[in-house]
Amino acid sequence: MAGNSSSWQRDEYRARLLNCRSLLETLRTMSDAPTEPGVPHLTTALTGPLLHLESHLLAHQTGIEAWLRAQWRETPAPFYASVDLRNAGFKLAPVDTNLFPAGFNNLASEFMPLCVQAMQSALERACPDALGVLIVPESHTRNLFYLESLATLAEIVVLAGYEVRIGSLLEDLSEPNEVALPSGKRVLLEPLIRRDNRLHVDGFSPCAVLLNNDLSGGVPAILDGIEQPIVPPLDLGWWRRLKTEHFTEYRRVARQFAELVDIDPWLIDPLFRNCGEIDFKNRDGEDCLARNVDELLAEIRVKYAQHGIDREPFVVVKADAGTYGMGVMTAKSGDEVRALNRKQRNKMASSKGGHGVQKVILQEGVYTFETWTNPDNRESAVAEPVVYMIDRFVVGGFYRVHTGRGVDENLNAPGMHFQPLAFHQSCNTPDPEREPDAEPNRFYAYGVIARLALLAAARELAS
Amino acid sequence: MAGNSSSWQRDEYRARLLNCRSLLETLRTMSDAPTEPGVPHLTTALTGPLLHLESHLLAHQTGIEAWLRAQWRETPAPFYASVDLRNAGFKLAPVDTNLFPAGFNNLASEFMPLCVQAMQSALERACPDALGVLIVPESHTRNLFYLESLATLAEIVVLAGYEVRIGSLLEDLSEPNEVALPSGKRVLLEPLIRRDNRLHVDGFSPCAVLLNNDLSGGVPAILDGIEQPIVPPLDLGWWRRLKTEHFTEYRRVARQFAELVDIDPWLIDPLFRNCGEIDFKNRDGEDCLARNVDELLAEIRVKYAQHGIDREPFVVVKADAGTYGMGVMTAKSGDEVRALNRKQRNKMASSKGGHGVQKVILQEGVYTFETWTNPDNRESAVAEPVVYMIDRFVVGGFYRVHTGRGVDENLNAPGMHFQPLAFHQSCNTPDPEREPDAEPNRFYAYGVIARLALLAAARELAS
Repeated sequence: MAGNSSSWQRDEYRARLLNCRSLLETLRTMSDAPTEPGVPHLTTALTGPLLHLESHLLAHQTGIEAWLRAQWRETPAPFYASVDLRNAGFKLAPVDTNLFPAGFNNLASEFMPLCVQAMQSALERACPDALGVLIVPESHTRNLFYLESLATLAEIVVLAGYEVRIGSLLEDLSEPNEVALPSGKRVLLEPLIRRDNRLHVDGFSPCAVLLNNDLSGGVPAILDGIEQPIVPPLDLGWWRRLKTEHFTEYRRVARQFAELVDIDPWLIDPLFRNCGEIDFKNRDGEDCLARNVDELLAEIRVKYAQHGIDREPFVVVKADAGTYGMGVMTAKSGDEVRALNRKQRNKMASSKGGHGVQKVILQEGVYTFETWTNPDNRESAVAEPVVYMIDRFVVGGFYRVHTGRGVDENLNAPGMHFQPLAFHQSCNTPDPEREPDAEPNRFYAYGVIARLALLAAARELAS
Repeated sequence: MAGNSSSWQRDEYRARLLNCRSLLETLRTMSDAPTEPGVPHLTTALTGPLLHLESHLLAHQTGIEAWLRAQWRETPAPFYASVDLRNAGFKLAPVDTNLFPAGFNNLASEFMPLCVQAMQSALERACPDALGVLIVPESHTRNLFYLESLATLAEIVVLAGYEVRIGSLLEDLSEPNEVALPSGKRVLLEPLIRRDNRLHVDGFSPCAVLLNNDLSGGVPAILDGIEQPIVPPLDLGWWRRLKTEHFTEYRRVARQFAELVDIDPWLIDPLFRNCGEIDFKNRDGEDCLARNVDELLAEIRVKYAQHGIDREPFVVVKADAGTYGMGVMTAKSGDEVRALNRKQRNKMASSKGGHGVQKVILQEGVYTFETWTNPDNRESAVAEPVVYMIDRFVVGGFYRVHTGRGVDENLNAPGMHFQPLAFHQSCNTPDPEREPDAEPNRFYAYGVIARLALLAAARELAS
């Protein structure tokens, strides 16, 4: 209980310096020596309402956390999730909630202990007696980025104290396939075997199945009617979920929350409309879509005027189910929908299963005014935060940084490329002594809004 | 899900470099510029059995974690704890388990998020509905190190999402007293008020009471019969706990664990004897004590011979109850007990309450063969690890580094001074690819043994 404060601080600095030195060594060996590090910053003068929002979240931290605790008691959090946020300076809102997250490899390695601890809580709640866990991943065997995420996820579960194997749904996988990854990690995909109503891989009978496959194409027969617990449940797959249902729940959550912290719910909630079924190829439903685009734009204009925002509204049109179902388009008028050429319409109609008719959601486009400056060429790039949660805990996040895209474009479009930029501070240590927009405080705000989306997903599952 | 792996690694390095630069700046401003950082290393050739132990723990990680999960389901972990370990190279064992830990300020700041998350789990389990938490601390108002720990503990609870106030037991505190701390933090001590059977501080009615006072002097009347939940329970205070009971439970835990990982339980368990009551001043019980010292030394000699350890055994004599109760002595023969002079006997008899008669425990002395080299003067110092847990989670630790003491001396004696050296790696991310004694693996071993002591404390509480 005693000690010399200034000398222990020196020790702490020394230990950190050791890490720094090995880091500097690593940097020397890298071909492209950086000139300057950096994190994204807001490049808009319209930060008044956001600072207002961040200040409100900081001021209400205890109330927010207590409210969230009460919500989780009523509706337990989904097993895990990642939430894409957009930060417009005047507005901070979720635009997509993924309940089978990939991208774990993009989290800062220093938050691995946080992931491990949260995974222990999540698995103890979901499958108290489990010893062995079988991960059922996406069937993206050539996507090394996905496989890196899978390797990291498996590592988290191993470190949480479980035996882990990976059982692949790939039909042409007849024997175990070990893939060497760019990080130096290896991932072993094994053929999934069903015996009666239990899943196995060769020589391993797991107590529980951890699903990391969003089931966009439906529930494969091999997973149907399994007696082992499957987390998250099959019903959370995109074969059944609809974005409109999620954002309907989110709207309720946002209203309750806005009342708690006394803000306009629109500051955290993107407006949306549901447009029924559209056949882009045959132009069925096109008029309805165009009309709804105009109506939604009108709604946004009202809110922009109310908050004094001098920007042109836009909407995003995307599939109501799934992430890979169809193209994504942005529109600043209904006429843009009518003016789509054949190629563009085919792109919008492209889907995993090849169906021509699809449900779509029209969502208020939220500008991304966070930009990151590339230290090599001083070019600016748009940055979109993604927040990761395991159980009810925010365990980290990263920015999707995309140099070739505009502030009003979708940063998670199929086939897109981005540079991930890990959050190097946690989302659970806000510092009220600093500016509302200081990194730990901005990340706290991200963690709060992401958990509101998580709560909406929990209510989807419960409803 | 896409991205360029090598470039995001660069981004990660850049972000870390930013931290390094500010660190280097800080170092430049410190008067005593270090020549080299470092962590303690083992300075003994007798590491065979320990490497054996560490290798065993790594190889059995999944089994160990599953076993611990089952134990916590049966006997929930205490609210929080710190465990003093001694690492003799050939043996790794707990020597003290504190259920009202101080020293939170000595943990590395990068593990704050881990503490926050574990505190959320702990408080949600202990008091699901709590909004406001009242901390009842030790009454060490002049011990700035204790107050730094208290400030950090309060910060963890605030960040976990609770309103926090500190209610002091100090009888002469008639109004709130804010103390400025060397770290720049401030801590506000307020007079504790009891109204009927509820505790308050002015204007704050807490839902739960978090005790950070080890109750060495008994349960103060103001805490007796309170209707708010008190965590940890009053019964875990030193007024009621005995080290011999703890180590009796620990012996059982160690035997069960040793069977699981197939080792000699002695490698993790210090032998001990209970010597009834001793009156050092009047030399009552001295013969019994001396005889037991010799018998315990003989037992240790047998184990040393069995494991080929060429060291002289020693025993530690300390109070069976409390941490401040009496002096601590080491002895290499029973005659040393008989040869104590009056001054030494008075020191051994000195106790908080002033009683002359005390229960003592004789414990096998475990050599500390971890040493840390001071980069300023190249002097070696003895280092003793202390591991911190909140709920069942290991949240960090530090080394007590003491330059003036020998490998066989007590490093936590009353009035002693040490330099804390924070663990900069977590205890839950072992790396089987590295040497069993690499830092994350050694820390994993520490985390396992500390949790065995935590389990023994849990069983004390349950019995």
